[in-house]
Formats: sequence, structure tokens, C-alpha cells
Amino acid sequence: MRGEIELRLAMRHAGERSLRLRYELVGAAEAPVVLVAGGISAHRHVAANAVFDEKGWAEGLVGVGRALDPQRRRLLGFDFIGADGELDVPIDTADQAEAVALLLDALGIERLHGYVGYSYGALVGMQLAIRHPQRLHRLVAVSGAHRPHPYASAWRALQRRAVALGQLQCAETHGLALARQFAMLSYRTPEEFGERFDAAPEVVNGRVRVAAEDYLDAAGAQYVARTRVNAYLRLSESIDLHRIDPAAIDVPTLVVAVEGDRLVPLSDLVSLVEGLGTRGSLRVLRSPYGHDAFLKETDRIDAILANALSLPGETA
Amino acid sequence: MRGEIELRLAMRHAGERSLRLRYELVGAAEAPVVLVAGGISAHRHVAANAVFDEKGWAEGLVGVGRALDPQRRRLLGFDFIGADGELDVPIDTADQAEAVALLLDALGIERLHGYVGYSYGALVGMQLAIRHPQRLHRLVAVSGAHRPHPYASAWRALQRRAVALGQLQCAETHGLALARQFAMLSYRTPEEFGERFDAAPEVVNGRVRVAAEDYLDAAGAQYVARTRVNAYLRLSESIDLHRIDPAAIDVPTLVVAVEGDRLVPLSDLVSLVEGLGTRGSLRVLRSPYGHDAFLKETDRIDAILANALSLPGETA
Repeated sequence: MRGEIELRLAMRHAGERSLRLRYELVGAAEAPVVLVAGGISAHRHVAANAVFDEKGWAEGLVGVGRALDPQRRRLLGFDFIGADGELDVPIDTADQAEAVALLLDALGIERLHGYVGYSYGALVGMQLAIRHPQRLHRLVAVSGAHRPHPYASAWRALQRRAVALGQLQCAETHGLALARQFAMLSYRTPEEFGERFDAAPEVVNGRVRVAAEDYLDAAGAQYVARTRVNAYLRLSESIDLHRIDPAAIDVPTLVVAVEGDRLVPLSDLVSLVEGLGTRGSLRVLRSPYGHDAFLKETDRIDAILANALSLPGETA
Repeated sequence: MRGEIELRLAMRHAGERSLRLRYELVGAAEAPVVLVAGGISAHRHVAANAVFDEKGWAEGLVGVGRALDPQRRRLLGFDFIGADGELDVPIDTADQAEAVALLLDALGIERLHGYVGYSYGALVGMQLAIRHPQRLHRLVAVSGAHRPHPYASAWRALQRRAVALGQLQCAETHGLALARQFAMLSYRTPEEFGERFDAAPEVVNGRVRVAAEDYLDAAGAQYVARTRVNAYLRLSESIDLHRIDPAAIDVPTLVVAVEGDRLVPLSDLVSLVEGLGTRGSLRVLRSPYGHDAFLKETDRIDAILANALSLPGETA
């Protein structure tokens, strides 16, 4: 089922606000509930299912026989607050976590069997684990740390400036496309670019055009077609506002790191796990897809999730 | 002395052109000549000297007792063609090398004792060594490879798009500043940003501002004040046009690589040295300054240059 709830939220940076939160809940009715939350451009539709058959953002992680098997789990997804572009104020990851808690109330879900968060979704999961530890049995945090790396923050700040440059006159989507293209460089790795875009550049209309530009054009256009500028800006900011104390997380937490992630370096996830103490454990993947490994290395991620989310008596 | 020569150049992508090439030549009159060429924003004034006392772009590498000692070496610098912004066509590194050969003719310098090139200057040095091997005794190529890495090319292409977006908005310098700010992220490392910009972000006028933004503002403003937009665009393109066959270099070449350089990865410089065969050797530095290590690790670079550029009977 899909739906939306109305909620009032005391936002950290913007006072009390009335908001709508849209969700999707699918899978076996009585099965344990797993919430799946992705990066800032993810949404409530995690994967195609019997009711809603359009492609989701984490296709390949959900399916029969997978750790996220709709026959054995109930899968909950939601649209981040701010994702509709209506809320033009600073949004904290703590605000998102409070919204999730209210959503669980509304749906009558006392406790999640698991919360699987990737990138921004992982940051929200940490806030939920700190503020409402009784609402989740375990947390799987993939490619997200207790605080943004200053280099990654600088990178995002410049992407927001590209949007602002576009907004100066009437090229807002042009600026958003450029921001997304720069972001793609942070999501992927030189290793992948080296393999895919090795061709010599061309001179087109007196200008040099390098091999990756067709790919980057497509990435920009695709993003602009489905993203509100304010949503991008406010959720990008939200990553930079995130700072939590790992010691405050009192829920068993599996941290999944990708070696070669240019946005969330392995060393920061090692610090996170150290801060978690006995509640934390770490799995490290090596992938040419860097920060996007969660979306690309679906078999390897599934094996990790199967282990983390299994029930007594289930074969992982 | 400073001067300029007029030259006619058969440019690879733009046909025959009349150009001016500006140079600076300082140091002991009869000493061996070392040409020093830097990145795309470097110029003919390498360092302050007795005649021209303003700061140069490689201050700290030149001085009494240094490998680049004006009492024992004659130091030649030049402005890259295109650096004045007058030449709005694709510029190849081979074009630059031909211009250098004509400059050596004009100055009556038969053979350089050494050519020290950093970043773009290294690419030009390789072209000189291929096209005019008799004009240089040895080449020191720092942080420059036989071809650009596809990931770095993509990064530069997006910087050029930031300029184009600014031009569309009648905010040309705004676009150039943003391009430079993105470039700074490629010149430096997460390690350095992690140490310098660890402070929490602030919310200023309803927008999130991260710790590195003051630094990035200053870097952008400083660059815009001294750089013509066309010069930036055409020299940035020129890096992406560069492709040479290392086996064609028939001059002893020392390649200096910086581990952690995000623009010119160590692995590409290892390939370059492999291609050079017996004529090549490699030195690797580890530095938190990444691609900019040449400008920052001046003592370590000096030690390498002292060794590479010493004369028989000199103590390095």
C-alpha cells in the first residue's frame, strides 16, 4: 500500500512545521518490517512489486530469495521530507528521524526488524537509533558516517553554488544538471572512468569535448527531469548538517564501507565503528563503483544483508 | 631580462598563427640554462630575483643553495601561448613545445641543461623531448603524464561548463571562480581538507555554509583577478588534448609522482616510466598536498632537483 500522513514536526533549524510524509509498504502482511532508505535522490518506491510495478531505486536488492524478500519481509519506504521541494528551509537528519518515528506510530509498527540505510538514509538511521532506539532491532548503515567529511562537504557546497549560478538568471535546470554531473564524479571512481571513457577527446565546433561528456550529459538530463531544485539543495545541505555521537547509538549496528568511496572514506567509517564499541561491526567492500556500490554490487550487498537481517531458523 | 618574441606557429588544431611569446631569463650569464614551466596558471616569473622582485609562482624552489640557484644556473621561464587570453582556439601541448624551440632559437640557447616541468609544464616538456630531443639534456616531469586520466578530464570538462554557465548568465567571472574552486578540490586532498576544515557548518541567512567555503571564496576571487577566461578555457582544454607515446621520448627523463594526487594518479606515472624504458626513472612523494605538492613540499622537491640537475664536480 501507499499513502501519506500529515505530521507536525519541531524542526531543528526551522521551528514547528506541518508536513506530509509519503510512504510505501509492501510484502507479507505479518512478516517483520524492514525499512529501506537510500540516498537523497531515492524515494518510497524501493523496487517493483506486485502492486506497483514501475522500477524502484534499489532494483536488484529486493526479490524472492533475497534478504529483502517480499514473501518473508514487509518492506517500508518513504520520501524524505523536503523531497517534494515544498520545504525550503534547512532540514536536519534528526528531523527526518522524528518523521520516521511518527510514520511508525501511524502505521502501528512498534519496532522495525531492521533499518537498512544507504548514504543519506544511513545518516537518518543513526538519528533514529539515537532518538528512538526502541523502534529498531538493528541498523545496517551503508556508506554513511557520523559526520560528513570536510572534503565531501566542500564538494557539495560547490555543487550548490552551481545551482545558485544557474538561478542568477533563468537557467535553473542547467545549474542543477551541472551540480548533478559534479556529484556523479563523487559517486563513482577514477577506476571506473578509466575503463569506460578512455577514448581520445574530440574537437567539436572549436571546443574540446572529452569522452565522458555524453555520459555526464545523460546523467544531468535524467536527474533534472525528476528532481525539484529546492529538494536537491535542502537535502544536500542536510548531509552537511549531520553530526552525531556514535557512542549515543544504543542499537546493534552493522556499518558497511566501500574502499575507494570518494565521498565517505573508509577511515571515517572505521572511526564510526570504534565509537560504536561493542554494538558496532564493520564490513568492507572493494568496488570500482565507490559510493554507488550499494546500487551496483547487489549480490555482495545482498549477502551482507542476508546475514544481518536473518531470523532464527531461517537459512541466510 | 624579460622580453617577448614574435613567432609564426603551425598550430595542430588552428592552422598557422602569428603569436607573441613572453619570457624571463635570469641568473648567472654563462651558467647552464634550466627552463622551469608550471601549471596552467603559472607564468614566466618563476621567483623573485635581483631584477624583478615581485613574488613568482614557484617561490621556495629558487634561491642560493637551491638546485635552482641563480648564481649557478640561468633560469628561463615563459608565458604559455594562450595565457594572455588572445588566442581563442584549441591549443595543443605540441604547439607549446614548438614555441619553446623557437624561443631557444631566438635566445641563442642551443641546448637546455634541464627542463623542469610541473603539471602542464611537464606535458609541454615531453612534447619538446619528442620533437626536439637535441634541445634538452634532461627532463624532469613532475605530476604530469603521457595522457590525461579520463576521470580528471571529466572533472576539467565540468569546470569548463561552469564557465559556460556563467557566460550564459552574464556572470563570466562568477563562473570562472566556481571553476577554479572545483579545480582546487582536484589540486588538494581530503587529508588536507580534513585537517583544515573540520569545524561544524553554519546556517547563514537560511543556507548551510560549510567550513571550507571561506577558503574557496578566497581561492576563486584571487584567481579571477589575474586570469582571462579564454586563457583558462583553452589551457584547460589543452591538458585534455595531450597524448604522447612515452617510447618516443629520447631524452633522460626523471618522473616525479605524488601518491594521493587526485588529478594525475601514481599508476599513470608508473605506466609513463614503463614506456620510457631505460631512459626513465621514477621518484614518488607522499604528500597531503596532492597535485600541488610541487608548490608546497619545496625542500623535498629541491632535493630531487639537486640530484637530477647537478653538474660533474658540484655537490648536490
